[in-house]
Amino acid sequence: MNKNSSNIMALAPNTSNKRETVCIFGTGDFGRALGHKMIQSGYPVVYGSRSTQISNLIPKDAEVLGHAEAAQKAAVIIIAIQRQHYNFLTPLAEVLHGKVLVDISNNLKLNQYPESNAEYLAQLLPGSKVVKGFNTVSAWALQSGTLDASRQVFICGDDVEAKQMVMNIVRGLGLTPVDKGSLLAAQEIENYPLQLFPMWKFPIFLSLGLGLFFFFYSLALDVIHTYIYENNNFSFFIAITVPNRVFPVMALTLLGLVYLPGIFAAIIQLYRGTKYRRFPDWLDKWMLARKQLGLIALAFASLHAVFTLVTPLRTFASWRTSKQIISQVLSNETVLLNHTNAWLSDSYLAMGILGFFLFVLLGITSLPSVSNSVNWREFRFVQSKLGYLALILCTAHTMIYGGKWFLNPSAYKWYLPDIYMLSLVVPCAVLVVKFVLIFPCVDKPLTRIRQGWERNPRYSE
Amino acid sequence: MNKNSSNIMALAPNTSNKRETVCIFGTGDFGRALGHKMIQSGYPVVYGSRSTQISNLIPKDAEVLGHAEAAQKAAVIIIAIQRQHYNFLTPLAEVLHGKVLVDISNNLKLNQYPESNAEYLAQLLPGSKVVKGFNTVSAWALQSGTLDASRQVFICGDDVEAKQMVMNIVRGLGLTPVDKGSLLAAQEIENYPLQLFPMWKFPIFLSLGLGLFFFFYSLALDVIHTYIYENNNFSFFIAITVPNRVFPVMALTLLGLVYLPGIFAAIIQLYRGTKYRRFPDWLDKWMLARKQLGLIALAFASLHAVFTLVTPLRTFASWRTSKQIISQVLSNETVLLNHTNAWLSDSYLAMGILGFFLFVLLGITSLPSVSNSVNWREFRFVQSKLGYLALILCTAHTMIYGGKWFLNPSAYKWYLPDIYMLSLVVPCAVLVVKFVLIFPCVDKPLTRIRQGWERNPRYSE
Amino acid sequence: MNKNSSNIMALAPNTSNKRETVCIFGTGDFGRALGHKMIQSGYPVVYGSRSTQISNLIPKDAEVLGHAEAAQKAAVIIIAIQRQHYNFLTPLAEVLHGKVLVDISNNLKLNQYPESNAEYLAQLLPGSKVVKGFNTVSAWALQSGTLDASRQVFICGDDVEAKQMVMNIVRGLGLTPVDKGSLLAAQEIENYPLQLFPMWKFPIFLSLGLGLFFFFYSLALDVIHTYIYENNNFSFFIAITVPNRVFPVMALTLLGLVYLPGIFAAIIQLYRGTKYRRFPDWLDKWMLARKQLGLIALAFASLHAVFTLVTPLRTFASWRTSKQIISQVLSNETVLLNHTNAWLSDSYLAMGILGFFLFVLLGITSLPSVSNSVNWREFRFVQSKLGYLALILCTAHTMIYGGKWFLNPSAYKWYLPDIYMLSLVVPCAVLVVKFVLIFPCVDKPLTRIRQGWERNPRYSE
Repeated sequence: MNKNSSNIMALAPNTSNKRETVCIFGTGDFGRALGHKMIQSGYPVVYGSRSTQISNLIPKDAEVLGHAEAAQKAAVIIIAIQRQHYNFLTPLAEVLHGKVLVDISNNLKLNQYPESNAEYLAQLLPGSKVVKGFNTVSAWALQSGTLDASRQVFICGDDVEAKQMVMNIVRGLGLTPVDKGSLLAAQEIENYPLQLFPMWKFPIFLSLGLGLFFFFYSLALDVIHTYIYENNNFSFFIAITVPNRVFPVMALTLLGLVYLPGIFAAIIQLYRGTKYRRFPDWLDKWMLARKQLGLIALAFASLHAVFTLVTPLRTFASWRTSKQIISQVLSNETVLLNHTNAWLSDSYLAMGILGFFLFVLLGITSLPSVSNSVNWREFRFVQSKLGYLALILCTAHTMIYGGKWFLNPSAYKWYLPDIYMLSLVVPCAVLVVKFVLIFPCVDKPLTRIRQGWERNPRYSE
Repeated sequence: MNKNSSNIMALAPNTSNKRETVCIFGTGDFGRALGHKMIQSGYPVVYGSRSTQISNLIPKDAEVLGHAEAAQKAAVIIIAIQRQHYNFLTPLAEVLHGKVLVDISNNLKLNQYPESNAEYLAQLLPGSKVVKGFNTVSAWALQSGTLDASRQVFICGDDVEAKQMVMNIVRGLGLTPVDKGSLLAAQEIENYPLQLFPMWKFPIFLSLGLGLFFFFYSLALDVIHTYIYENNNFSFFIAITVPNRVFPVMALTLLGLVYLPGIFAAIIQLYRGTKYRRFPDWLDKWMLARKQLGLIALAFASLHAVFTLVTPLRTFASWRTSKQIISQVLSNETVLLNHTNAWLSDSYLAMGILGFFLFVLLGITSLPSVSNSVNWREFRFVQSKLGYLALILCTAHTMIYGGKWFLNPSAYKWYLPDIYMLSLVVPCAVLVVKFVLIFPCVDKPLTRIRQGWERNPRYSE
Repeated sequence: MNKNSSNIMALAPNTSNKRETVCIFGTGDFGRALGHKMIQSGYPVVYGSRSTQISNLIPKDAEVLGHAEAAQKAAVIIIAIQRQHYNFLTPLAEVLHGKVLVDISNNLKLNQYPESNAEYLAQLLPGSKVVKGFNTVSAWALQSGTLDASRQVFICGDDVEAKQMVMNIVRGLGLTPVDKGSLLAAQEIENYPLQLFPMWKFPIFLSLGLGLFFFFYSLALDVIHTYIYENNNFSFFIAITVPNRVFPVMALTLLGLVYLPGIFAAIIQLYRGTKYRRFPDWLDKWMLARKQLGLIALAFASLHAVFTLVTPLRTFASWRTSKQIISQVLSNETVLLNHTNAWLSDSYLAMGILGFFLFVLLGITSLPSVSNSVNWREFRFVQSKLGYLALILCTAHTMIYGGKWFLNPSAYKWYLPDIYMLSLVVPCAVLVVKFVLIFPCVDKPLTRIRQGWERNPRYSE
């Protein structure tokens, strides 16, 4: 015995010896990692290999045989070789007849081949029962034993019993099998591990672009303009003041963009008089990105909330307070409470908090486990009713915050509107059109269209 | 080709042609929406219809035949017609023999019929394999392709293979089937989409009632009383000050109401000497509403936290600070730190934060995915031990906040106690009784009763 | 009829009489609780008991017969007796042949017996189909009907059909069955309800130890030292100031400890030149505790955030502000904004907020339902890239907070460094080594090793 094999202690010492032998074709990285893990979990493992020379790399407790002999020892054979070499399996068709072949291969690109690897394998060996699986698990994770990410293993295959056998092995390794149906799902399963937040790309790039634009807009008006015309160097505004002007603008604009496609969809359906035609592609994509846009808006709103709450802790704020109080003391005036200001400040704070609160509620509802536990009616109620309420509250928050400021010439530095006015454009547009859409004379035909009625059925003939 | 059909591009271009034909009986809204979706997902669709005249409404790529011919073309038949018309299927019994019939119907009211639609269908056509499904999906969502809500499709049926076939179609449409067991579950599945937060109704109405009461109570004492007797118009208190007096009172009272039914249950069991009798109905309902009550309490606590944290940003607060400092300056007194006040303010803040922290922890534990990953013992530990700790901390927070105020006559405007005293009633009652219940002389018999012991077994003979 | 039975109203009044009879062996607490629940859910229940005398304890609507007669009445038999008495079932082997036996037993200790109770039962009665289940449900929860915790019931067994029958009963009781595979999983299922946060023990004890150390360290330097040398009694610092010095130190140190084992693993793999050997046990355990360490760090970070935000509400803070402004007034100096301080305060606040924001994002990603919906690549991206970014931001936050303070002799009371310097030790070490590891000359061999390459394949021969 050497150090290597003594390290391979069974993680599950209580598993009895009942586990059935599993055969692994191929001694590449993933084949070895899977073999290690299976031996740890109590499965006898036999490797099928062209040469038994390279046995030093594979787990010590595994047997290494030729392909045909190895296959005869097990009912389940893991095909840990690359798709390009699948055709070397065809001579083994007879030995593999009736066996369960587990295709664990991954591709390098999305939709690299016309058919999935598993379907290709099934075509090559029509007598075997092909099951797709394990490809979503990382070899590194299997090896190090630290499966702190998803423990789900997607499984698909046409033979129910073969799938059951593979799912039992998955469970035996401490993972959770998820049945994805027939072998037609193999393409999707093979594409899955190659994705990196595909739904998030467009929303994140949009947010980045918008965010940079608003950042430089605010930088120009709040820092550079002040520096040029008032000769005040407020460059430290870059850390908190400028971001905290950009964040609420982003949050409100993105929240508006969440509800804008629904408005467009309603207008298009009203215009076409039917719901049975697909929306333009850009609208389809936009609608599918609403959840992500909403969550990014929530992130900006949260940052805005915290950046606002730390205000009293800033050196700048305590300097401003001191300066103000001292000037009041020196001028010897009586300090009177400005009731209008008290009303304005309190009500815009309250609206902002309540809007943010509803916003967080929407965010919680979009957690997978929560949205799975509500039905369609409840989901619509939360996302539509509460969502619009949040939009109204946040828009009102911004409007009251601005107050009469938009009438003040000094709000238009370099003839540009203050940034808070820009943030009102999208949400106000959405709210105005939505207000029109809920008028009965508009709402009724729309509802009928959405229930399947068509204004012009001749159209589609 | 017309515009309509060219719009129906396959969303999943990689699906091969292996999908088996699906037959849909009925060309109503949901039948058409489902057909569109199936064609997009690569399923050949054939409609069974009384007349092939109305074919202009249904997807172009679908065939339309008479019922019998359509049924012969497919193994799975979606019954997209209303329950009232089910008996027209009886003449087709022979054609439908051995076929998988998918009942997708919904009712207009909960428990509208004595038996579920699917069971009724199974009675009408005993030779067919009836599967319930798809009724929880919205036609609008299927049509617009924006399934951002739950993708779960509840399935039930007595024939395992028929269920598997339907579940494969569900997966083929990009949805997640959830097996709910035998056809007995059909009633539940049919009721599911009609519900609108049934568990939340009582807690929300209770909170609304309590909230309004406390709001007007605080309004009377904090705004109206001040206006009448001190001639100060603090009407702007309505925006932040008054809500922030109501929120903590609501949070603490509702948190107390979460633990009160457990106290009642213990007393009832001690009195009866057995656990094998059902609690009174009101207690049963109350116990089932505890989670919702707790989450509403958490919402109020969160609002209280944020409303408190924005205090320094209020015009009122900065006016008060200025006024205070200027009066100190003018009176020329030395400012000394009041150590008692420093202790009180710091400790009530610390207790509030820690209590709130535990409260948030309880909220996170009640997320479905988190509560599914803890066992019963762990759940009890968190909800009971940590819950009581949160209750104790929040009660202490309120008591220290009040301090000696309850001894001050000015705390009793119009002879009414200050609102913070009201909030202590329920939690203090709960804590006192709980304290009695953990005395060994009370705890021991209670534990024995909960382990199945009965004081008076003759009783039930 | 007596009160007892009239209390047992069916919870599901719409279930028809189709439910099949279930037999329960044993009239102990759990057997009775399960029987009550089954009768409520519409299942006819028959008890198998040695004597029918004790029938007064069991539900009134249930039949009580001898074991053999009871077993003949049902296809599914719940074995609600203790493992020690299983051998009394052997004489019944013939009656139980082909029946589904549900083992619901639990042990008192983890791995009490060499094989699981269910496997032992299967050995005793090889002709019966043994299914493990129900043991994770609490009798008290079944009885009181308040299943607000997990509704999951783990099921395992070798016979697929038997499992299906038991899973249907589980669904009939309003619970969710989770298939855990073959009977080999029984040991795990039997151990499950005995656990109390096993993964959390080490992280919590570590945090407690570290926390206490830092608390007394801060207490000594911030309270006791001030009291002795400056004669200022700041004992009230114990409530907020001292905890708020300990919390950030704990958060940063624990966050560093999350990334430290990954650093060690990389070094070990580089040194060994292979990934195919298990890490030392301490490292394995540490790596498995990373998620928990990270969540505790997040808890401390959240507490730090809130404790900081309440600062302006403290009596101490308003006293300090007053004192400062009044001394400025009296000294008649002009208040000038210190731009360096403004920069420092704003940037350390901004970094802290952004770091905390990323930290919360990591926390959300570790929710089971969220981590299940991302693939391995996405999970690695979030946990590794965003995690290191959070660590960098939080370390920078602490460094800027300290500023030049570490050069000041008064920062070294009793020749000990200020507590914030201690918090930088672990994260700085991690960041420095990580910086070395991403150099190409180190990163390349490491990547090759992780892809399965071995520096010294002879080694393992």
